[in-house]
Amino acid sequence: MDAEIITIGDELLTGHTVDTNAAVIAEQLTNIGLSVRSIYSIGDSVERIEEAIRQAVIRSQVVIATGGLGPTDDDITKKAIVKAFKRNLVFHEDVLDNLKARFAGRGIKMPAINQNQALLPQGATFFPNRNGSAVGICIAEEGFIFIALPGVPMEMNQILVDEVVPHLKGLKTRRTVKVIKLRTTGIVESKLAELIAPDLKLANGVRLGYLPSFSGVDLRVIVEGDEEEEVKDKALELVRYLERTAGRYIYGRDSDSLEGVVGHLLADNDRTLSVTESCTGGQLGMLITSVPGSSGYFVGGLQAYSNNVKVQQLKVSEEMLVEHGAVSEECALEMAESCRKLFGSDYALSITGIAGPDGGSDDKPVGATFIGLATAHGVHARRFSFGTDRQTNRSRACYAALELLRREILDIK
Amino acid sequence: MDAEIITIGDELLTGHTVDTNAAVIAEQLTNIGLSVRSIYSIGDSVERIEEAIRQAVIRSQVVIATGGLGPTDDDITKKAIVKAFKRNLVFHEDVLDNLKARFAGRGIKMPAINQNQALLPQGATFFPNRNGSAVGICIAEEGFIFIALPGVPMEMNQILVDEVVPHLKGLKTRRTVKVIKLRTTGIVESKLAELIAPDLKLANGVRLGYLPSFSGVDLRVIVEGDEEEEVKDKALELVRYLERTAGRYIYGRDSDSLEGVVGHLLADNDRTLSVTESCTGGQLGMLITSVPGSSGYFVGGLQAYSNNVKVQQLKVSEEMLVEHGAVSEECALEMAESCRKLFGSDYALSITGIAGPDGGSDDKPVGATFIGLATAHGVHARRFSFGTDRQTNRSRACYAALELLRREILDIK
Repeated sequence: MDAEIITIGDELLTGHTVDTNAAVIAEQLTNIGLSVRSIYSIGDSVERIEEAIRQAVIRSQVVIATGGLGPTDDDITKKAIVKAFKRNLVFHEDVLDNLKARFAGRGIKMPAINQNQALLPQGATFFPNRNGSAVGICIAEEGFIFIALPGVPMEMNQILVDEVVPHLKGLKTRRTVKVIKLRTTGIVESKLAELIAPDLKLANGVRLGYLPSFSGVDLRVIVEGDEEEEVKDKALELVRYLERTAGRYIYGRDSDSLEGVVGHLLADNDRTLSVTESCTGGQLGMLITSVPGSSGYFVGGLQAYSNNVKVQQLKVSEEMLVEHGAVSEECALEMAESCRKLFGSDYALSITGIAGPDGGSDDKPVGATFIGLATAHGVHARRFSFGTDRQTNRSRACYAALELLRREILDIK
Repeated sequence: MDAEIITIGDELLTGHTVDTNAAVIAEQLTNIGLSVRSIYSIGDSVERIEEAIRQAVIRSQVVIATGGLGPTDDDITKKAIVKAFKRNLVFHEDVLDNLKARFAGRGIKMPAINQNQALLPQGATFFPNRNGSAVGICIAEEGFIFIALPGVPMEMNQILVDEVVPHLKGLKTRRTVKVIKLRTTGIVESKLAELIAPDLKLANGVRLGYLPSFSGVDLRVIVEGDEEEEVKDKALELVRYLERTAGRYIYGRDSDSLEGVVGHLLADNDRTLSVTESCTGGQLGMLITSVPGSSGYFVGGLQAYSNNVKVQQLKVSEEMLVEHGAVSEECALEMAESCRKLFGSDYALSITGIAGPDGGSDDKPVGATFIGLATAHGVHARRFSFGTDRQTNRSRACYAALELLRREILDIK
């Protein structure tokens, strides 16, 4: 079945808002076997929304729109829906009661303006909104299903995942689709393809995609077919093949993050971690502590940005700094060792590099980065050569550091 | 003049890639006075790309497409362009020479596959690409101008800013447009509107937009008209009014960032800064050091995540922690003071809070955050109540801390 996404809002067309809703919806629909044929972003204009909806339901069996369902004047999607489908608005007492209860729960009397949110197009069903006042609207006719969701990402996401996806999964005409994402890091796309592709023959209905980002390359396995058993078997067969050929680079699946996986490894092994960061300034600690529960294994860190801090707080030797410089293997080694001592953790990671745009030299150009790891058994460091963009270099350094630790814990050489 | 954006790539329709290119292009076009009427994202299909281009150049005077200009088989945008405009591909020797020089500069012989990148549609002009091998393609006919750019964001962005925007600015039929973005922080949208709106009458052709994000609310002034002088005067008049009514919340303009503005203030006043972060885990340091040249004023920091680190490395008192807890005004005060001493900096910022999702209580629910600032004249702290989302809370805490310091340096009460 084909699907289309319509995202609504002037802020999308002036570039103020990056359209993350479209990507979230596209991923969810892809994962349940719908084929998204287009994403269309338009402004707050009744005529254009109406036209977009009309054309979309002719072309596609599933159409999802977001945005413009709020209570104020500039929220006009509902006007466009009733025009597109030639229906009237009908009052829903249960929706109003829910709305009133929602406001009462926050100790606020419901503003009169919100009453119009209980008006829905005739014949439409609705999906409740746990995080806001605008319910999702669903109109199903012969040949298509049209769904309108609020544009606030948290509200959209909740209704999509809790209501829309289960609803669409229940439709009978869907083909079975299985999507598995294997997440790799520490290897570039072309080398990964060299490992995987030479002997690979993909069966009918099976696709393999390489999706690079600065945290690594995701392998997306998509299998489509009519029989659920067969689809599942084909997907698992390819996953097993990928694990055989590239397993050491695969750190997780689907929504796993590298910082989450490393966190679980630390927690499961009852180990603690500290960090010391020069060029990344705190980003590695931020990533690690983005995982709820990270206080169970993350002790703390030292943002050793200036050489003074490296010498006085971290206690690396001044002689080493003079001889080798702060961006050196020697410094990364000393930083990691000293960090481990200072914080009394089982592991300590250090990052020192030339993030750019300035500060590069012939033997240490912008992007040159040293990452150290101290353990109970010793300390080692690795040199990386990243690119020329400051923020990208810093992000790549953090993921490289996490991967160094993952391989250490799992004893992957 | 109307403009449309077409973004091309299967990865957009499976949700793997968030379409940041569309927002970047939309912002640039808006800033030079074009009105973006839609953004259309489609997959790697010659037929759909061809159809999208054909329809867009009928509706709009400026059409910009991105993606699918690489050298490999799945880069098919050029095929679609020649079909849409019924033209042949013509070999451009100068493009090939540039390509060869590009590869030679990297010490690599140009792969044969790249030769086809020197083929361009008949009558097209091209925009050079400083960061990659695919040039931008420009086809101008009576009534429209069509431009195709590569999809790699760094390449797209360079060609857009260096080539496309100046080219479009040179077109005669444009109305004059002036866009000024005033960046505020530390005040919510509705309160900002209360300060600004009561006495505000906007002149003809003048628009004012409120654009909230978690770092603050941007005020976007857009003035359109036929006379450059008049447009400029109207824009400045509104800017002056906004500065009069909301000036204390305005930290910068256009591409200014709060971390950049605070950095400049520190550098200009020859002052240094250190930070100590609990719930943000390093994000504040990361933000500060995202500014090139931050080593001139940022000394370093302590990621005091565990209470142990707070006591042993930061030297806050155990009694205070027992009595008030780590998330308290008392702790934020001691953290800031100790941090300033430890690093010997002029200013020190501290952040301690309950980022969530767990750990909240009745008097300190998730989102409760204390931020401290120590200076040569003393130390103070402020309590903030953010929301329920962990990452948003952490980001908001960092911007609130930077704003605290900005007001301190500028003596804004």
